[in-house]
Amino acid sequence: MLLYYFLATVVLAATSTAQPDLDNPLNKNFNKLHLLRRQGSFGGNSNGAWCSSWQYGVETNNIIGWKTVPEKCELYVARYMLGERYGEDSKVVTKEAYLYAQSHTLSDDGKDVWLFDVDDTAVSNLPYYATNGFGVKPYDPESFHQWILSEAAPALPKSLKLYKNLKTLGFKIIFLTGRRENERSAIESNLKVAGYHTWELVLLKDDDYSGTTADFKAEQRKNLEDAGYRIVGNIGDQWTDLLGTNAGHRTFKLPNPLYYAA
Amino acid sequence: MLLYYFLATVVLAATSTAQPDLDNPLNKNFNKLHLLRRQGSFGGNSNGAWCSSWQYGVETNNIIGWKTVPEKCELYVARYMLGERYGEDSKVVTKEAYLYAQSHTLSDDGKDVWLFDVDDTAVSNLPYYATNGFGVKPYDPESFHQWILSEAAPALPKSLKLYKNLKTLGFKIIFLTGRRENERSAIESNLKVAGYHTWELVLLKDDDYSGTTADFKAEQRKNLEDAGYRIVGNIGDQWTDLLGTNAGHRTFKLPNPLYYAA
Repeated sequence: MLLYYFLATVVLAATSTAQPDLDNPLNKNFNKLHLLRRQGSFGGNSNGAWCSSWQYGVETNNIIGWKTVPEKCELYVARYMLGERYGEDSKVVTKEAYLYAQSHTLSDDGKDVWLFDVDDTAVSNLPYYATNGFGVKPYDPESFHQWILSEAAPALPKSLKLYKNLKTLGFKIIFLTGRRENERSAIESNLKVAGYHTWELVLLKDDDYSGTTADFKAEQRKNLEDAGYRIVGNIGDQWTDLLGTNAGHRTFKLPNPLYYAA
Repeated sequence: MLLYYFLATVVLAATSTAQPDLDNPLNKNFNKLHLLRRQGSFGGNSNGAWCSSWQYGVETNNIIGWKTVPEKCELYVARYMLGERYGEDSKVVTKEAYLYAQSHTLSDDGKDVWLFDVDDTAVSNLPYYATNGFGVKPYDPESFHQWILSEAAPALPKSLKLYKNLKTLGFKIIFLTGRRENERSAIESNLKVAGYHTWELVLLKDDDYSGTTADFKAEQRKNLEDAGYRIVGNIGDQWTDLLGTNAGHRTFKLPNPLYYAA
């Protein structure tokens, strides 16, 4: 738990200077992470340039359907996620989102909504991935499910700031995620602990839903617009959150080189 | 002209070692460019990290409708375009495009097409932008028109390679650009000189077309599909080439931090 706290505070650019408890077994990766951070954030080895181009391909939706981070890019991705660039890139996105939201004149019927994806948009799974190979290992549903149930994902600081600012402007917030109903309690509890205290809806897949997350999200967005909501903005870390029908008047893509979700 | 040749050969990673004619007034920026290249490709100043995040925002369609490159990013953009990263990032895109094209089973009716944008997709306007402030100066239609009429834009090497490979696979190539009919002669001539010798169609705006390029391209794509063509792939450097209706079964986004086209 303290590792998560450390990551949430130091890595995700919050302001606490709390030190992790090195006796806690969760902190065995502390020195490794710290070492990575000290090595600087980019390049510095022959894979850096290639991995940077790979990241360009991933973030621009050119490289799709990939299963794992290329093994030679583990250090690159670790440095990106643990260095300043991840936060700075996220800041550019949420700043543009807020400028756009400010320029929008809200109607007075309370139907102007902003969609947030959950994983690595509202809250960060970096603590999980940092101790599970930074995306190089294949996705393991069971250990990830346990991580979700731990309710320990910290807020992405830039996303939480955007959430608060959007609420101040008068937007209704709807969380739309490909996670399932059997995790609802943990998800809602985690969102609240992370600072997302209120919302209009948290939309989850039924446990027996068999379609893709992209299909599920498109269906849910259509339902929302059929119900009279206007999707003014939509923010996510996966292109599958943002493409397709009823995607929203504007969409915002947060960085995520750790995994691809269809 | 020799500057263009220099840029096309050295910068765009072709193999000639021809040296530019330094008495040619077009080459007055040679030393400046060379100096930039020697300074390395990234960072190295306090603006590098910010500009890198700005570039992330631009390439992921988070920052839209921008008029000019931020002045503090001129050096950053110059280094990106003149260094290895531009070519490497482009290579990731065209490689994915080719892998996808290879996996596609072509029908035998000759209606499988691949769309290419022209500017900074098929051919490079980098020689123009390199002598006009790397996107920091506002767009100047008159000098750009003169540049087009000079028919001096070199091929983007990765795009030309993709074009040749797609033709070998049996795809019909259609060039779709927001440029206008009054430039058709120069555009077609330039394409041929650059190595794009044959095509199915070159689609240009009528001189009095008043809509956006995004609208024009969506209309043209619909016309193509109504005429029985199947848009299997679509490659461009602007998101407005790739979003909207009938965009193609898959789309590929080449990098371009020099300008935004709506």
